[in-house]
Amino acid sequence: MLILMEKEHTSVQVEAVVRQIAALGFKSHLIPGEERLAIGITGNLGPISADIFSRMEGVQEAIPVTKPYKLAGRDFKVGKTQVKVGDIIFGGEDIVVIAGPCAVESEEQTLRIAMLVKQAGANVLRGGAYKPRTSPYSFQGMGLEGLKILAKARALTGLPIITEAVDPQSLEKVAEYSDIIQIGARNMQNFSLLQEAGRLRKPVMLKRGLSATIEEWLQSAEYVLSEGNDQLILCERGIRSFDNATRNMLDLSAVVALQMHSHLPVIVDPSHGTGRRLMVSPMAAAAVAAGAAGVMVDVHDRPKEALCDGPQAISPEEFGLLVATLKRVAGAVGREGRNAQR
Amino acid sequence: MLILMEKEHTSVQVEAVVRQIAALGFKSHLIPGEERLAIGITGNLGPISADIFSRMEGVQEAIPVTKPYKLAGRDFKVGKTQVKVGDIIFGGEDIVVIAGPCAVESEEQTLRIAMLVKQAGANVLRGGAYKPRTSPYSFQGMGLEGLKILAKARALTGLPIITEAVDPQSLEKVAEYSDIIQIGARNMQNFSLLQEAGRLRKPVMLKRGLSATIEEWLQSAEYVLSEGNDQLILCERGIRSFDNATRNMLDLSAVVALQMHSHLPVIVDPSHGTGRRLMVSPMAAAAVAAGAAGVMVDVHDRPKEALCDGPQAISPEEFGLLVATLKRVAGAVGREGRNAQR
Amino acid sequence: MLILMEKEHTSVQVEAVVRQIAALGFKSHLIPGEERLAIGITGNLGPISADIFSRMEGVQEAIPVTKPYKLAGRDFKVGKTQVKVGDIIFGGEDIVVIAGPCAVESEEQTLRIAMLVKQAGANVLRGGAYKPRTSPYSFQGMGLEGLKILAKARALTGLPIITEAVDPQSLEKVAEYSDIIQIGARNMQNFSLLQEAGRLRKPVMLKRGLSATIEEWLQSAEYVLSEGNDQLILCERGIRSFDNATRNMLDLSAVVALQMHSHLPVIVDPSHGTGRRLMVSPMAAAAVAAGAAGVMVDVHDRPKEALCDGPQAISPEEFGLLVATLKRVAGAVGREGRNAQR
Amino acid sequence: MLILMEKEHTSVQVEAVVRQIAALGFKSHLIPGEERLAIGITGNLGPISADIFSRMEGVQEAIPVTKPYKLAGRDFKVGKTQVKVGDIIFGGEDIVVIAGPCAVESEEQTLRIAMLVKQAGANVLRGGAYKPRTSPYSFQGMGLEGLKILAKARALTGLPIITEAVDPQSLEKVAEYSDIIQIGARNMQNFSLLQEAGRLRKPVMLKRGLSATIEEWLQSAEYVLSEGNDQLILCERGIRSFDNATRNMLDLSAVVALQMHSHLPVIVDPSHGTGRRLMVSPMAAAAVAAGAAGVMVDVHDRPKEALCDGPQAISPEEFGLLVATLKRVAGAVGREGRNAQR
Repeated sequence: MLILMEKEHTSVQVEAVVRQIAALGFKSHLIPGEERLAIGITGNLGPISADIFSRMEGVQEAIPVTKPYKLAGRDFKVGKTQVKVGDIIFGGEDIVVIAGPCAVESEEQTLRIAMLVKQAGANVLRGGAYKPRTSPYSFQGMGLEGLKILAKARALTGLPIITEAVDPQSLEKVAEYSDIIQIGARNMQNFSLLQEAGRLRKPVMLKRGLSATIEEWLQSAEYVLSEGNDQLILCERGIRSFDNATRNMLDLSAVVALQMHSHLPVIVDPSHGTGRRLMVSPMAAAAVAAGAAGVMVDVHDRPKEALCDGPQAISPEEFGLLVATLKRVAGAVGREGRNAQR
Repeated sequence: MLILMEKEHTSVQVEAVVRQIAALGFKSHLIPGEERLAIGITGNLGPISADIFSRMEGVQEAIPVTKPYKLAGRDFKVGKTQVKVGDIIFGGEDIVVIAGPCAVESEEQTLRIAMLVKQAGANVLRGGAYKPRTSPYSFQGMGLEGLKILAKARALTGLPIITEAVDPQSLEKVAEYSDIIQIGARNMQNFSLLQEAGRLRKPVMLKRGLSATIEEWLQSAEYVLSEGNDQLILCERGIRSFDNATRNMLDLSAVVALQMHSHLPVIVDPSHGTGRRLMVSPMAAAAVAAGAAGVMVDVHDRPKEALCDGPQAISPEEFGLLVATLKRVAGAVGREGRNAQR
Repeated sequence: MLILMEKEHTSVQVEAVVRQIAALGFKSHLIPGEERLAIGITGNLGPISADIFSRMEGVQEAIPVTKPYKLAGRDFKVGKTQVKVGDIIFGGEDIVVIAGPCAVESEEQTLRIAMLVKQAGANVLRGGAYKPRTSPYSFQGMGLEGLKILAKARALTGLPIITEAVDPQSLEKVAEYSDIIQIGARNMQNFSLLQEAGRLRKPVMLKRGLSATIEEWLQSAEYVLSEGNDQLILCERGIRSFDNATRNMLDLSAVVALQMHSHLPVIVDPSHGTGRRLMVSPMAAAAVAAGAAGVMVDVHDRPKEALCDGPQAISPEEFGLLVATLKRVAGAVGREGRNAQR
Repeated sequence: MLILMEKEHTSVQVEAVVRQIAALGFKSHLIPGEERLAIGITGNLGPISADIFSRMEGVQEAIPVTKPYKLAGRDFKVGKTQVKVGDIIFGGEDIVVIAGPCAVESEEQTLRIAMLVKQAGANVLRGGAYKPRTSPYSFQGMGLEGLKILAKARALTGLPIITEAVDPQSLEKVAEYSDIIQIGARNMQNFSLLQEAGRLRKPVMLKRGLSATIEEWLQSAEYVLSEGNDQLILCERGIRSFDNATRNMLDLSAVVALQMHSHLPVIVDPSHGTGRRLMVSPMAAAAVAAGAAGVMVDVHDRPKEALCDGPQAISPEEFGLLVATLKRVAGAVGREGRNAQR
């Protein structure tokens, strides 16, 4: 059940609704939106009568949640959600370009690449400090030290940073240091992590799970939104398929499908989505042509030394050419395509 | 085993090689290429010694076929194969746009839509006369009568036509009437059909099977090429996936992968590849951005009346806008993007 | 539209129905069943009124085909279809065991293995004469000569034979020599081949396509049944998946699903379904436990010499142990499990 | 790097190895095995020289971890790992049968079903207290209260219990109340949860992720094992496929593949693996025929009232028949098949 308050509601009316929900033994979630305040109800085992709420003062409508997602859907919001990080806007006119090394490996490496991607036109700096690795014997990231290096890179370049949180401990740290919190593909259905990210008031980027349907992905988004955090970006990063010609199969139709069913901005990661350097630039261009709000690419100037995912990183030079191409493609499909970073 | 003849070879030398192959009990395939003549050997149960051939006069090299495909691969040809249909070139500078109804339903419908897509900028007219349908109770196409209607549409518009062959009988007819022979996804591993198409001297378009890997697809291409027909176009049309947000999952990374491993031109069918009208134009633009040599789209002016796949056809008006967009996107990624049809 | 005739109908009544169908411009299919005669109608572009037929003499019911398949489904027949090959019954009490080499490689090899599998308890001999191979450079089978060798093996052992047809030419030959006609996975949606097999009056075994859903498979079965051939066996042989731990992923739940939705007998091929020798026996036992009417296994006494699929063939000794295990498992799940071959 | 200590080692020698690892800046993991003590090293960014350790006293061998998993693999242990819960043994002669409701819904419901499955022959009681649900609006489980109800059911029936932990908070509680800790499919790559479970000294059951390969699954197992907990059971529960004839596609070949590559016991969940009541018993029988160490099935006496996954629960009566069938099938494939519960 989702209770939409009237535009002109009072805090006393909200409290009355919250008390009513508690009286029924359920849990309420205040979800402040740009357009209106919503109150979500969870914890109910069966359906709740809408009448109890719809007749209360200040309540505009009590909507039974029949679709598997609500706040993430077009029924809740017609326009586009814009996620703002400083003067960078995801879901606005401009294409946002996130770039950087797959992993923070050292201060020297990170600052060096940060400067290179800044000069080449990146808007946001990426770099993993906590790395979810398939094998316990693979490099697991530099952790807190890596976050501090990223903060230095931000100070040096002025670029906001994005980095991944993998569990409650790292989430707390990432929320402290990073401008955007990344939840990775393997954690797309780590529901308690999603809820904790939803309780923060920082932008979150949620990657698609390896075999998640669009509907499941939007339900995971709902876990973040229903805790009150509407600064959410979705990131397509390839799904699992039968063909090993690519590491994953980048599903660009997801960009279009999400825009049909949701108001959230969608970006694409062609680096993890293909796993092959030669495919990154063409697929990034295709992502923008399909309507993506931005792209996230691995860039490394010495890919053979990379501790993680070297084979998919492009060089700073190629990245510079890509940024220019993306602007032209954005223009070709009728969008500004200016880079926020001018 | 593949025997490459020297550029300056004589017909006597070729005959000697063919006789030697026959003497060993194998079958030879003359494969004339733009750059050089190749002679393929099939029918051998085990490996053949290259020495027998490499010492013969006029033979430049005898290559054991260690990779699963040879003629379709980059080892055989470095540049791009161009497939020519009148003055339309697949694999050249221009983006080729194929459009028309999914199925030929009547003369009136076909001529009407043919004129509309011609005016909107199509280069080739599509329309199914023989329809492979999952159910025996679905409309199976108009057959020979449909081919005759397509021929009239060609006469009316000047557009070359492409239509599908589904078995030996229809192949014979399609080869007689059509400018390009389409082999559909369900027949991608119908090897005897591929071989018969390879014996023709008409352009063939081979669609990807529903769960075919890139490598399997190129091996199917090899069945056509090894019979001597090098006028072959590949068409990505979506693969089977777990998500029903789209009818199929359009794999645009296949366009890039094929260009890495093969010299054959690749086009994309976003209509069958998504099955949803609203997705066709963005995915067509993405296909060109990824490097496709062209696109094939279902266009219908009265989609609700369509006997086949109405939900994925775009209107002639939207198609006109799409053609203009594709030209701009082609330019944005550094290609001419002029339409062959000027 | 499917027209069911009354039990006590006359040939004059049937002819009247057929004439009426022709008068409407459609095609009629006489489908003689054990319980009743059905007349299928195809060629209609839109729905046909049932009234035209239901009021005719001798007609019991005119059923609009709303489900994608009809003759293959439970609505058409409640019990089990039994397919009889001599005194072997697919879909009866006994588990049917098909065994033999993947491919007929020579007379000596085939007769030798035929005797070994006969002694070990096989009921039917398998062996490919026409092999659909992914690569044109792989061994394509011995063709007609292979069929003649299989016929000799039948004469020697008394075992009926099953072998694959891959196109119209081979179908004609296979129908002449073989007791059961196999249609392979790659041809599951080669609809004209299915129709030709449906016009024969010999048992057909239809393998599941690499990425075919149960519903698509039953619609392919419908192509055979609607031509009047109800002697049809289905064979699960593994689907395409993302995991290369096995060559294909054997879907034993398909056995159960098919029995829920269809009356046709279902067997399982654990050799192609796993591609690994060590997996064949456990998965064959599992297939029988799940309710399969039989299994088909590759057996080779010299697997390293096999020209095709050696890594998945089990030895005659292991096969003998497997036959005994299958009988015990069949008993354990409440079936006779006697081998037809006693 | 994995360091195997000699059988006759001293604690002083172990401490020396641990200090050496710390001196290099890495982390050591004591992994006591039945046969020998191993010390794992993590935290190293690059390769470590084996020489440093292999020359130390008490060290038998220093093995560079070249395969993606080590402790889970056949190289580390030839025989079978047995996981013991009271007198129930996973991986022993007997088939272990886990049964109960999908979710703990109330004390009355849980105790009632617990008694019914105990009488019908279950060895372990299942029931979810913390439920990972795709939608935030679905019933999320009774939490701690549910654990207390399960403890009462154990006291009443004498059956050990298994229930799922979904995050660090619930893991702590589940470890306190439950006999076996279940890690669900969605958390198969929640690596920090796996590590925390690995630090406990209680049996863990790790379900396969929706699109996890066998190799990835064993690497996730390695996360548990490398923290020193070798009481690990694997559970196949169906993978994601393109066919919606079943909720998931149960991959029984995984049972065989795991036994080839690992020593860990494998059980099968045909309830979640098919999602359809009618499929549960045949697929459970097939699982045992394929070699599974046990099965886990949802049982509910009033499935229409179930708050979670009612359509896949079988009745206590059917469950009783299933237990008897499983014993017979186990016997048929040469195993004891006695139920630990006699």
